[in-house]
Amino acid sequence: MKYPGGFTKKGNSQVNYANRGMNFEADINITNDYYRDMDIAVIYKKPTPITINKVDYKSRVDAVIKEAHFNTPSTTDYNGIYKGKYIDFEAKETKLNYFPLSNIHQHQIEHLKKIIKHGGIGFILVNFKNLDKIYLLEGTKLFSFIESNERKSIPLEYFEKFGYLIKPKFNPRIDYLNIIDSIYFGGMV
Amino acid sequence: MKYPGGFTKKGNSQVNYANRGMNFEADINITNDYYRDMDIAVIYKKPTPITINKVDYKSRVDAVIKEAHFNTPSTTDYNGIYKGKYIDFEAKETKLNYFPLSNIHQHQIEHLKKIIKHGGIGFILVNFKNLDKIYLLEGTKLFSFIESNERKSIPLEYFEKFGYLIKPKFNPRIDYLNIIDSIYFGGMV
Repeated sequence: MKYPGGFTKKGNSQVNYANRGMNFEADINITNDYYRDMDIAVIYKKPTPITINKVDYKSRVDAVIKEAHFNTPSTTDYNGIYKGKYIDFEAKETKLNYFPLSNIHQHQIEHLKKIIKHGGIGFILVNFKNLDKIYLLEGTKLFSFIESNERKSIPLEYFEKFGYLIKPKFNPRIDYLNIIDSIYFGGMV
Repeated sequence: MKYPGGFTKKGNSQVNYANRGMNFEADINITNDYYRDMDIAVIYKKPTPITINKVDYKSRVDAVIKEAHFNTPSTTDYNGIYKGKYIDFEAKETKLNYFPLSNIHQHQIEHLKKIIKHGGIGFILVNFKNLDKIYLLEGTKLFSFIESNERKSIPLEYFEKFGYLIKPKFNPRIDYLNIIDSIYFGGMV
C-alpha cells in the first residue's frame, strides 16, 4: 500500500521506501530538473501538504518536526510555466490495464477544470506500470469521459484513442512537454 | 524568532503559534481563497517543504509523521494563474523601515528571474509591519536594485518610488491582483 510522501507500510517498522516503487515520480522530477537546467520550462512538484502539530527547536537549522499529519491535497502535484503558459498536472500510476478514477481526488479534478477555465494547460500523466506505457491525457478528455460515463475507471482504449503515448527516452526521461508542444504550440512529436 | 511553517519558539515548549503574528500570511491565504471563490484567479500557497524521516502507520488516514525536517525552499511560496498568466510571488514582512535582502533567499530571486524570463508575472509583497504598509514590488525592480547596489537592504523610498502600495480593504484583504491588473492588463487601480 502506498502512502502520501512515497512511504510504504511494512509491518510495524518505519521504513522510507522513497526510492523504491517511486520511479515514476522520480523520473518526472528528473525530467523537470532537465527542463529547468536546459531553460526549457520551470515546473516543480509541490511539497507534500502536511499539518504540523509539534516541533522541537534546538536552533533554526535543527528544528525537528515531531508530529505532523498528511493532508488531502487540494490541488495537483505539479505546476509551473512553459512558453509563457501556466502548466498544471497530476501524475498517477496503476498496475491494472485500466485507470480507476478513485486514484484521482474529486477536488483535483475540480482544480484542473478551474486551471483550464482560466487559460492554463491541465492534464494527467498515467503510468500503466505493467504495460510499461505512460499516457498524457488532457484535462478536457478526462472531464468528458467522467461526464459521459457511469464507469468508475477509464479503459486503456480511451487513453489509446484520446491520450498521447509518451515515448521512452533517456533524457529527458518522460518528455511530456514534447506532447504539449504538439497539442498547444504546433510542434512536432 | 520565526521558524518555517509559522512556529515560534517559546522556552522548551512546543507551541503552535500559527495564528499569532502570522496575520500577513493568513491574510494572503484569505485573499487567495476569495480570488478562487469568486473565480477570479487560482493561486495557492505551496506547502512547507520538508523531508520526512519517520512515519508511524496505523491506517492511511492515521499515518503520523514522527520525524521530519524543514527544507530550504527552492522556489517562492505562492503561484497560480490569473487571466491566463502564470503568477509567482514571495511574501515577506519586516518590522524595520527598510527591507533586508537577507529576508529573501538567493535561489528565490533566481527562481523569480526564470519565471519572468519564461513569460510569467513575478513579484514580491513586503509588509512593513510597524508602518502598516504593504508594497508590491515587481521582480524586475527587485533585480535592478540588487544589480545596481552594494546595499544589503532596500530602503522604503525605493518601494515608494518603484513599488505599488496596496490599499487596505475588507474583502479581499490584500488585493494584489488589483495592482497586477493595472500593471499588466491596463486595469484601473
